[in-house]
Amino acid sequence: MAREITALEENHTWTLEPLPPGCFPRILGHEAIGLVESVGDGVRDFAEGDMVIPIFIPDCAECIDCTSKKSNICSKFPFSHTPWMHDGTSRFTDLKGETLYHFIFVSSFTEYTVVHVANVTKVETSIPPNRACLLSCGVSTGVGAAWKSANVEAGSTVAIFGVGSIGLAVAEGARLCGAKRIIGIDVNPEKFEIGKAFGITDFVDSRSSGDKRVSEIINEMTGGGADYCFECVGKASLVEEAFACCRKGWGKTIVLGVDKPGAQLTFKSFDVLHLGKTISGSLFGGLKPKSDIPILIKRYMNKELELDKFVTHEVRFEEINKAFDLLIEGKSLRCVIWMDK
Amino acid sequence: MAREITALEENHTWTLEPLPPGCFPRILGHEAIGLVESVGDGVRDFAEGDMVIPIFIPDCAECIDCTSKKSNICSKFPFSHTPWMHDGTSRFTDLKGETLYHFIFVSSFTEYTVVHVANVTKVETSIPPNRACLLSCGVSTGVGAAWKSANVEAGSTVAIFGVGSIGLAVAEGARLCGAKRIIGIDVNPEKFEIGKAFGITDFVDSRSSGDKRVSEIINEMTGGGADYCFECVGKASLVEEAFACCRKGWGKTIVLGVDKPGAQLTFKSFDVLHLGKTISGSLFGGLKPKSDIPILIKRYMNKELELDKFVTHEVRFEEINKAFDLLIEGKSLRCVIWMDK
Repeated sequence: MAREITALEENHTWTLEPLPPGCFPRILGHEAIGLVESVGDGVRDFAEGDMVIPIFIPDCAECIDCTSKKSNICSKFPFSHTPWMHDGTSRFTDLKGETLYHFIFVSSFTEYTVVHVANVTKVETSIPPNRACLLSCGVSTGVGAAWKSANVEAGSTVAIFGVGSIGLAVAEGARLCGAKRIIGIDVNPEKFEIGKAFGITDFVDSRSSGDKRVSEIINEMTGGGADYCFECVGKASLVEEAFACCRKGWGKTIVLGVDKPGAQLTFKSFDVLHLGKTISGSLFGGLKPKSDIPILIKRYMNKELELDKFVTHEVRFEEINKAFDLLIEGKSLRCVIWMDK
Repeated sequence: MAREITALEENHTWTLEPLPPGCFPRILGHEAIGLVESVGDGVRDFAEGDMVIPIFIPDCAECIDCTSKKSNICSKFPFSHTPWMHDGTSRFTDLKGETLYHFIFVSSFTEYTVVHVANVTKVETSIPPNRACLLSCGVSTGVGAAWKSANVEAGSTVAIFGVGSIGLAVAEGARLCGAKRIIGIDVNPEKFEIGKAFGITDFVDSRSSGDKRVSEIINEMTGGGADYCFECVGKASLVEEAFACCRKGWGKTIVLGVDKPGAQLTFKSFDVLHLGKTISGSLFGGLKPKSDIPILIKRYMNKELELDKFVTHEVRFEEINKAFDLLIEGKSLRCVIWMDK
């Protein structure tokens, strides 16, 4: 993988307008690992044979954001849901020569892809690829949300709305930060048992909450709310519930879920002013791809960050549809898809 | 002033439901300074003759919030817009013995008031009372919002929506924090000249912005938004504008203005998730009355915090209505009302 483009104009489109979700034919997939097959003109820092993780948010390593410790939202190559490379072109065609669209700068459901250097992080080969690939999005996003975006304090209480892979990764991050109590909230009660290995200590089955709102239950369980509430589903009403059971005075509500285009979050002005809570988003867990991913790898090698438990299935690329079939059947799977070189 | 009550039950009403704004007959006023005339049973720490500032948000000095560095939202005596003391009674009657309501635990438009110890901060007599009284709400709220709630970094850019006393105090706080550029936004262009003494370096007359939204103008002026945006009016649409011109990656939108009951703040879910900005409120500037006010007094005595410029008029208590008449005439006044003991 990885043939590269070179210089690009800066682009200051900082208010995102998502494209319609359907944009085909397209090479999907955005969590991966691979070897550099070749590099384009002007590419430094990468060479044939390097093991790299493609990451959907760019890190140009040069702009004010990428050189700041505070931001992971690159200014030189703005993240967007464009179906193109950063220069507005596609590098893919089908056998007839017709354009195939990219998917958030990665397009990993393929033997070969083309990724910009800003969207690639080099990794040590000491970490197995079927574990390192998890850091390409999901695990990093969740762990980073607890570690970087929320900066969870040791001894604190965390509530996680949605215990899928992202929610489990938030729990893992909160566990690493020393959270004392980690409450999972999900429609599927089986998630409690699954979540225990990730540090989840308490569980609310949101379909069995009776007349009570989930936020009421969390407020009662915690005596006034969780210190950190993470929304990992992508549903405005859940963000509002998360805010409603976030501890007054210092509580943080962190949005990780991707809602449908145009969705709006609504909060009472009075509550925002009077209750001392903050609301923020966490794109890629607030992590900086080129500097923070190596830290996570090191923590995995040190046996702190536990990646193995994030994988329930491994299937060959040729059988990728099996993974989707299992999902459709409602299985809670977290699957690595692999191919020989 | 200051006859005191003793023990109270804890109260966990943490979601605020504002009362109807009209609740009379009532003793209004909430920014003041005074001498303790007497203390109630069980009152320690205060004695007759102490100079004290009444502050509308309680600080019991005992609960988990008041003993934490992170919160200024007392759990033992929750702030609310109740017309009563913390125990649900009034200490005021008129000459016929009919109840008079309290106003946010202070009620300072009177020669004598009754304030709970949790709502009183003792101050050194070295600071003149006609300056110390400014720390009872307005100046503290604005300065604290920049200092404590936002923690404005030296060299940063600040945008202030609404250049009244609160907005000017935010500017003063941002100036003290070393902000490089402080942009005032107001419907009244005279506020630019007034604001310069408080550190305002740039100004947007929101009534002369033509086809452009104020947020567009700020985004253009700053090349992508201000690092900190403060809403000091109490209008949901301005909070949304503030968020829209808050710097991606690290921008903070701070709500200080008190909107009408039931007002809602709406943000695009996509923007919250993808732009790395935070939203929070700042009640009393995030300050802890009993520990932070003495710091502000010290900074005034050290000639860092400039309080004199906050006062344009001083009138005797007997002439209090003159101040209101000037306000009604549209004068930009910041008035201290005083009485002899």
